[in-house]
Amino acid sequence: MAYPPSPFAPAHFPALPPVRGVRLAACEAGVRYSGRLDLMLAEFAPDTVVGGVMTKSTTAGAPVDWNRVALGNGAARALVVNAGNANVFTGKRGREAVAKTAAAVSDAIGCDSNDVFVCSTGTIGEYLLEDRITAKIGDLKTTLSDTAWEQAATAIMTTDTYAKGAMRTAEIDGTTVTLVGIAKGSGMIAPDMATMLAYVMTDAVLSPDIAQNVIANGADKSFNAITIDSDTSTSDTLLLFATGQADHAPVTEFGEKRLRAFEEALDDLLIELAHQVVKDGEGAQKFIEIRVAGAESDDTARRIGLAVGNSPLVKTAIAGEDANWGRIVMAVGKAGEKADRDKLAIAIGGVQITKDGEPVPGYDETPVTAHMHGRDIEIDIDVGIGDGQATVWTCDLTHGYIDINADYRT
Amino acid sequence: MAYPPSPFAPAHFPALPPVRGVRLAACEAGVRYSGRLDLMLAEFAPDTVVGGVMTKSTTAGAPVDWNRVALGNGAARALVVNAGNANVFTGKRGREAVAKTAAAVSDAIGCDSNDVFVCSTGTIGEYLLEDRITAKIGDLKTTLSDTAWEQAATAIMTTDTYAKGAMRTAEIDGTTVTLVGIAKGSGMIAPDMATMLAYVMTDAVLSPDIAQNVIANGADKSFNAITIDSDTSTSDTLLLFATGQADHAPVTEFGEKRLRAFEEALDDLLIELAHQVVKDGEGAQKFIEIRVAGAESDDTARRIGLAVGNSPLVKTAIAGEDANWGRIVMAVGKAGEKADRDKLAIAIGGVQITKDGEPVPGYDETPVTAHMHGRDIEIDIDVGIGDGQATVWTCDLTHGYIDINADYRT
Repeated sequence: MAYPPSPFAPAHFPALPPVRGVRLAACEAGVRYSGRLDLMLAEFAPDTVVGGVMTKSTTAGAPVDWNRVALGNGAARALVVNAGNANVFTGKRGREAVAKTAAAVSDAIGCDSNDVFVCSTGTIGEYLLEDRITAKIGDLKTTLSDTAWEQAATAIMTTDTYAKGAMRTAEIDGTTVTLVGIAKGSGMIAPDMATMLAYVMTDAVLSPDIAQNVIANGADKSFNAITIDSDTSTSDTLLLFATGQADHAPVTEFGEKRLRAFEEALDDLLIELAHQVVKDGEGAQKFIEIRVAGAESDDTARRIGLAVGNSPLVKTAIAGEDANWGRIVMAVGKAGEKADRDKLAIAIGGVQITKDGEPVPGYDETPVTAHMHGRDIEIDIDVGIGDGQATVWTCDLTHGYIDINADYRT
Repeated sequence: MAYPPSPFAPAHFPALPPVRGVRLAACEAGVRYSGRLDLMLAEFAPDTVVGGVMTKSTTAGAPVDWNRVALGNGAARALVVNAGNANVFTGKRGREAVAKTAAAVSDAIGCDSNDVFVCSTGTIGEYLLEDRITAKIGDLKTTLSDTAWEQAATAIMTTDTYAKGAMRTAEIDGTTVTLVGIAKGSGMIAPDMATMLAYVMTDAVLSPDIAQNVIANGADKSFNAITIDSDTSTSDTLLLFATGQADHAPVTEFGEKRLRAFEEALDDLLIELAHQVVKDGEGAQKFIEIRVAGAESDDTARRIGLAVGNSPLVKTAIAGEDANWGRIVMAVGKAGEKADRDKLAIAIGGVQITKDGEPVPGYDETPVTAHMHGRDIEIDIDVGIGDGQATVWTCDLTHGYIDINADYRT
């Protein structure tokens, strides 16, 4: 199960500060993996609120069902996550496994089990041995600390080759609040939602409605704008926990100007986490930014961008460092959205290749080929219809993806 | 440009009989390839009618635009096809190249240029050197024969590893009519339409409306039910040419019972050609049949089947001979169509794996793993909603696909 690390893997995990009201711990529970962290627990101070968005899959797993109900309260006291088994398509036993896990955490923390969020990631269709999880909750509680971000981020990895985390600060009413996020995701990544698991913790004082609103908005610009392989996970979960420990007056009204800096910081943090996921895409050797303009709407721009970002032919061409822009033409054409073929303009690495539906006269591929040899590939597409625009991110499709996925379970 | 042949490649091209009113020829025109056939011409008897369906891509090529107009007449006297350059995204020069090619053929054959169908397949976004084509039309005319099926099928290949052809006969009013089809396609294969190029010639006596009707119906059951890589070509074209040389009274009314055997033979022929395309899918090592039942409608069943057939994770698992049925659960979930997770039933190779949303008690993977080691993989999915059903076909996703596509242009 050891894959070559992504060429984008950072030298080390970022330094992340404590978030008031959040403590974490991780351990080896042996759910499926052995010799590595595979279980994390986060404890939140009383009055922590939560917002979140989850997979739209019709075959979502038992943990997703549980969290949807728990989100209804808007309150959270704990988060428990295991890697190695997704507890998806496991029927009644799967539902019981979630309930037992939540009960064990609620006993340990001393909270309502409805305030416990439970996530699982890994293989689909195998029964989760929840005893291995519940047996560890007591130990985890005794080792909770406010700095165990790296351990937590490591414990939720599956085919990830590096742990993912990021932080931002923002001011609300002159008070500095902190946002820290961790994420995992490497394959089965596509909107909507575009990651398996990501969690953001903040000490900001938000109402549950506000938490829900800002995380849903942020998801659209980040995790819903990335794709690795067009496959949507049954477990995708993005949650924002706001402990309310900062010293500003609560934010409870939509559109409050005082929240703007926080929203910008959150969006930025989510985009950074989403980029980390793409850069650790299974087999990824290139990070690809696709900027679409001139579309009928921002939504159609995003769909066109995702059609390009999901095209195996575009992604293999980039893997081969081949400036085969004809495949971008093809992918725009198959998107099923309005595009004016005879105005279509494509640039790669800032070099205009086509304009008005034809190659630019005297087009010289040399600088584009040089760009294709780099790690970061930039594609600009104008479809010549309207003012809609969007940016999406993806990675290339390489032999590494097939190596990893042809024998994931063995 | 030589790829290892598909493991499904037949020992030799099938023996195909003449179709009254059809003569063919092929030659080396050097459009892009050298040392191989890359240009074919078919001549049809006067009064030949034509029906067809073409790509829904919004960036369709100049030949597709031309053929759409030509289809309006319902009459055909010739078909000219080159391989190596798709003449797509080539603007005004591309349109002129088609018109010049059609004019050269109409001069040689002595027909209206509107009755000439022109197709191109190959690289997108390079100007077609139509002089290389028009220079050869005279020679091609002198070598027309009623048996040159294999040469014609070979001349239209790109990354195909074998030439594709098939035949059927049917009776109309006691008269035997013949149907012969040739096709090419290997990558950039997805509905709709699911192949780059396929042509069926018959001596049946049909009105243009009937020809259009039967080919459109047949396409839905065959080429629109296959996928190799989810990428829709800019050039997909399926045409039915009916020369009317058989000795039965014309068929001109929809739903005539006397046409039923012909329709069945045509559907069957199209499915065989579609299977040949999938079996020559870029890098294909497995042929996968996905049968979906219990869907809200036949259409939704097909969309669910295609979601499974397009899933890179399902296709790489099959490449790895891994019975990872959890990925089928995932792909059903992402299809965006109604499915009852808690009734979902999946079988592979006839072995029931899940029922009522859970693994079957005592499920033994041994026979399924044995099935995965074979060439032909059969997947049955019941989504537990209604009576809709559909069958789709695809191939696995292997290192060969990446080898072929990472350096297609070099």
